[in-house]
Amino acid sequence: METQKHPERERFYSRIGALNMTPLWESLHTLVPREPETPCVPALWRYQDVRPWLKQSGELISAEEAVRRVLVLENPALRGQSAITQSLYAGLQLILPGEIAPSHRHVQSALRFIVDGKGAYTTVDGERTTMHPGDFIITPSWTWHDHGNEGIAGVSEPVVWLDGLDIPMLRFFDAGFAENDSSHAQQVRRPEGNSFARFGYNMAPVRHAHSSATSPIFSYPYARSREALDTLQRQEAADAWHGFKMRYINPLTGGYPMPTIATYLQLLPKGFRGKTHRATDGAVYCVVEGRGTAHIGGQQFTFEPQDIFVVPSWAPLRLDADDDAVLFSYSDRPVHDALGILREAFLED
Amino acid sequence: METQKHPERERFYSRIGALNMTPLWESLHTLVPREPETPCVPALWRYQDVRPWLKQSGELISAEEAVRRVLVLENPALRGQSAITQSLYAGLQLILPGEIAPSHRHVQSALRFIVDGKGAYTTVDGERTTMHPGDFIITPSWTWHDHGNEGIAGVSEPVVWLDGLDIPMLRFFDAGFAENDSSHAQQVRRPEGNSFARFGYNMAPVRHAHSSATSPIFSYPYARSREALDTLQRQEAADAWHGFKMRYINPLTGGYPMPTIATYLQLLPKGFRGKTHRATDGAVYCVVEGRGTAHIGGQQFTFEPQDIFVVPSWAPLRLDADDDAVLFSYSDRPVHDALGILREAFLED
Amino acid sequence: METQKHPERERFYSRIGALNMTPLWESLHTLVPREPETPCVPALWRYQDVRPWLKQSGELISAEEAVRRVLVLENPALRGQSAITQSLYAGLQLILPGEIAPSHRHVQSALRFIVDGKGAYTTVDGERTTMHPGDFIITPSWTWHDHGNEGIAGVSEPVVWLDGLDIPMLRFFDAGFAENDSSHAQQVRRPEGNSFARFGYNMAPVRHAHSSATSPIFSYPYARSREALDTLQRQEAADAWHGFKMRYINPLTGGYPMPTIATYLQLLPKGFRGKTHRATDGAVYCVVEGRGTAHIGGQQFTFEPQDIFVVPSWAPLRLDADDDAVLFSYSDRPVHDALGILREAFLED
Amino acid sequence: METQKHPERERFYSRIGALNMTPLWESLHTLVPREPETPCVPALWRYQDVRPWLKQSGELISAEEAVRRVLVLENPALRGQSAITQSLYAGLQLILPGEIAPSHRHVQSALRFIVDGKGAYTTVDGERTTMHPGDFIITPSWTWHDHGNEGIAGVSEPVVWLDGLDIPMLRFFDAGFAENDSSHAQQVRRPEGNSFARFGYNMAPVRHAHSSATSPIFSYPYARSREALDTLQRQEAADAWHGFKMRYINPLTGGYPMPTIATYLQLLPKGFRGKTHRATDGAVYCVVEGRGTAHIGGQQFTFEPQDIFVVPSWAPLRLDADDDAVLFSYSDRPVHDALGILREAFLED
Repeated sequence: METQKHPERERFYSRIGALNMTPLWESLHTLVPREPETPCVPALWRYQDVRPWLKQSGELISAEEAVRRVLVLENPALRGQSAITQSLYAGLQLILPGEIAPSHRHVQSALRFIVDGKGAYTTVDGERTTMHPGDFIITPSWTWHDHGNEGIAGVSEPVVWLDGLDIPMLRFFDAGFAENDSSHAQQVRRPEGNSFARFGYNMAPVRHAHSSATSPIFSYPYARSREALDTLQRQEAADAWHGFKMRYINPLTGGYPMPTIATYLQLLPKGFRGKTHRATDGAVYCVVEGRGTAHIGGQQFTFEPQDIFVVPSWAPLRLDADDDAVLFSYSDRPVHDALGILREAFLED
Repeated sequence: METQKHPERERFYSRIGALNMTPLWESLHTLVPREPETPCVPALWRYQDVRPWLKQSGELISAEEAVRRVLVLENPALRGQSAITQSLYAGLQLILPGEIAPSHRHVQSALRFIVDGKGAYTTVDGERTTMHPGDFIITPSWTWHDHGNEGIAGVSEPVVWLDGLDIPMLRFFDAGFAENDSSHAQQVRRPEGNSFARFGYNMAPVRHAHSSATSPIFSYPYARSREALDTLQRQEAADAWHGFKMRYINPLTGGYPMPTIATYLQLLPKGFRGKTHRATDGAVYCVVEGRGTAHIGGQQFTFEPQDIFVVPSWAPLRLDADDDAVLFSYSDRPVHDALGILREAFLED
Repeated sequence: METQKHPERERFYSRIGALNMTPLWESLHTLVPREPETPCVPALWRYQDVRPWLKQSGELISAEEAVRRVLVLENPALRGQSAITQSLYAGLQLILPGEIAPSHRHVQSALRFIVDGKGAYTTVDGERTTMHPGDFIITPSWTWHDHGNEGIAGVSEPVVWLDGLDIPMLRFFDAGFAENDSSHAQQVRRPEGNSFARFGYNMAPVRHAHSSATSPIFSYPYARSREALDTLQRQEAADAWHGFKMRYINPLTGGYPMPTIATYLQLLPKGFRGKTHRATDGAVYCVVEGRGTAHIGGQQFTFEPQDIFVVPSWAPLRLDADDDAVLFSYSDRPVHDALGILREAFLED
Repeated sequence: METQKHPERERFYSRIGALNMTPLWESLHTLVPREPETPCVPALWRYQDVRPWLKQSGELISAEEAVRRVLVLENPALRGQSAITQSLYAGLQLILPGEIAPSHRHVQSALRFIVDGKGAYTTVDGERTTMHPGDFIITPSWTWHDHGNEGIAGVSEPVVWLDGLDIPMLRFFDAGFAENDSSHAQQVRRPEGNSFARFGYNMAPVRHAHSSATSPIFSYPYARSREALDTLQRQEAADAWHGFKMRYINPLTGGYPMPTIATYLQLLPKGFRGKTHRATDGAVYCVVEGRGTAHIGGQQFTFEPQDIFVVPSWAPLRLDADDDAVLFSYSDRPVHDALGILREAFLED
């Protein structure tokens, strides 16, 4: 619509602007687009590039002073927003031996995916979990949580994990609350592994009343998840788009482990050349094992273990693997489901 | 945190910025605030001020050229975003006698609340509904819909309604798709009132398979809704915060009529002086009957019929009524529910 | 299996019988039949035949002495079990002017469908409802309820209704509890029509917490239900099996009004000659308007207003109407749904 | 009510009896009892007593001739009904080395709990599972299944398991259908363990569409379940009524593994002296490990491994353990839940 031909319209727009009004007809096509036109772009962070800066951050500030010593991964097209997609946040957190990241809670849901090192722990709601590379750990909305690094089996080393949160969503919906704990490290009230024993074995205690929308299992150990993928790889043909892709579930509902974030673990067998898939949920990937290439909307990103990359909403994604590759990923799919707005396409290339 | 004292940190930030990274510890308190700090502000649009501009828009552009001849109500603090809250859109649409707003469909869910005039219709999925002031009408996600104004009972007059949509949400989640119909006005395939007869009487046809997340009733006539409020006013005491406030429901689920938008009709009896309520969902109000005052976060807005006002997320709201007042409102509460992030407080003043 | 040839087996059966054991192989074919073989038979009770006995029961015993003055309709093949199908109960209750059927409550869910006369009321949980012919009224599980007959608009006459309950189900699952009220007629605490105003208009009060599995509307007036059928008859073609058949719904769930009993109202247009339908739920029908014929499993039953007939599980049913006929019916379908055992067939004759 | 004093009533009852009617007031108190009065009685089957007869049944009839070579455990008060409670069936099935129990399917849901021996398998829907003592295996409603005994690791021995089914329920609701397979043993189409790999690890394949009401895991191995109990025993205090009692769940819903039957595994620590519990669901117990005493409604039953006992609806149950005892049990609780009729009481003795 060529507005320069309509000076009387321009005058009208200016006058109604004073009343905080604008004409829909000038922006309808961008407000209601024929298909999603995300500002978000694909990007990959090489762990080899990032690691030295993480190390240096450990010298720059203590975990306690920082509260959370995290380097936020910002989408190159969304700088200044602390967002890796429009709705999701990603960061790499470092905790050094002997440090504590103090206890707090917030409405934001968080996941931790262990990238490097061992000997750290997360305490959630009175139960401590030791973190191993590949473990997927949840700190549910409004739950007290703190982290520490006391070493394990005589080993004491820096530990790095990927933090995935719904911070931009909570900001968009203006619903974030937060609180610091009175003590830095909350008291441990239940033995390690208790939640998993209660809910991780396809059973549940008869007399529990679980009202949370978040999974009662807050640690999904890599050893178990990897075993499932290994069995499927031996027994089944790979999906042409996804390889062997599993969704983590909340065993009390069969749904997503968190109400705002979906999480996945997927194995691409050596030599896999995937077909193209696209979906409205944007996703963040973290490489656990193997090397390969992600083709995202016309760009190529080679990946190796510990790298992180982001796939914007509706961007075509094609995955190739040189070795058996294992990828963890998370996205805002639960919201797309709940709002009835999920669309996805499996393309025949 | 006073960063000016840490030049080495500033240098660090600059260097990691080149890798699209930022330090969380500098922004943690704003990213994870103690309580919501919405950029959105309260505002009221007086229909007496808006009406002349609506009339003038009818002379400026035709409904067909505009596709939808709407003056968008923009939150004063969110200018340029076509948003009345961060997640919701509001606009006033005018359709003149004889005009047609052509058929299209989009993933965005829309509600129409009739503000002024009669004789227009909305056609949804092959069924036409005549619009009367106070009627609440839905055009569900991805459903063909068009509007026209053929007059009724010999009366032919301009008709104005409030459009409420989830446009900002769909933009945030990058999930909007849209399509124009091949013909301007879709073919009417079912008689008027058919959906209401099938689903509006606390009954449902035995052999229907309704898979939509949206209510199968797409018109909730004001005559019926007002009757319910009238009965309650005669039978019960008013709620000290809300007066008599009813939630429109999807009769097949008991839930909200749309997956992204909640709608309400509420009666404040003459002389009502409400207590203060606040909630994380932001809301848009349209006055149907009566005069009164909305106290929103320290500001006062007197209202009269056809006025529209917006209450930001977590803003304290207190409502007073000079006459029996009836208010329609809509908010993004279904999303707050689905994401497990709703918080509300009923304050004793 | 011809057991007479196996005397050693007979001896074995006798010996294990002493240990409360029996051989499955002798009864497998009857325990796990190829298709349902219900003991229940079709039957019809002509109201003209029943009415004199109802009248006489009014002389024989008072409502108060009887607690509930009901003639139970027993399936002819299930005599002595107070059952009209294996899982459902039906009875005709008479209440004379001035009488009271005292307040009690029980786990059994009950429906009342008004057959004859006016001026009686049911009080449920503190709210009284006046009963008119064709009204469908619920007394939910474990809810105090009593009945009376005070006349209406100067008219004082005997009132008869059909009682439908899940008594045999509760007996089968051994889960029935009951309690008598300390006073005969419970105190009325809410005005008539209050529940309907709160939940009957496709709206619900914002601040209610309804935790019951039963509909919050406990009276579905015939005037409203009939209007829906009338509209559908004018607007749509009749279903070849069911005519115009509507399921009463719980507006807070879209499901059945009671967790154990489904209820329906159906209009067969004059001259309707239905196709044959069968389903695993057994059903009880009460004729409201019109005359016709029910073909049930090879038997014919002509019906007229106020007659009651029973259709056993899996019996083929075909309905013909001489006039516009309206039938109310109830069945145990919610249980078949919940247990995943519903099967139905729409036959082309 | 002393009917002998009312000869005119007796005449009335006789006359209405001819119309298949009876007076409610003569039976109201038994139809709607103050609390459940089940005809079912407690009973225990000592495996030492039963085993010789099972062995003899193996000589009396082949698995193939019997189709299922099962000794049905009948409640002593329900003889002739093939029922261990009013709604549940129990039987002990024997399969000898080399035998096949041919493939069929039925609406009835079945569980198998392995009691004695190893080397047998169940094939469900194309996937074979090897059976070990303590494993809980499901053959879902309307799913092809067959059993065989080919031995394992060079061992070839008779195998006995407990069959739990909902046969009486299906008979009561007249909804049973059954079909024999065209071939005796269905073709194996998926490797052993495939269902467990897909759904047993708190994950699920992203592209599956599971529409069944039954768990997609059909084998819950004892080794895993026992490990969970062992962990809880080391970490927590025992529940005063139940010890450590876990409910098997359907990981896609968090609900019961079958829509009609709940299943449990429970550990009573050595020396446990339980408090009294009662519930409306009737239950069948099978002892896996340890010795102890079940106090059921005033009767005492000492138990040892492989014994089976039945607890009627609403019977008070108190459990004592001499050793660490492990009990498997199943009940009709899902139906009590779905119908809204469950009641239970935890008594302080």
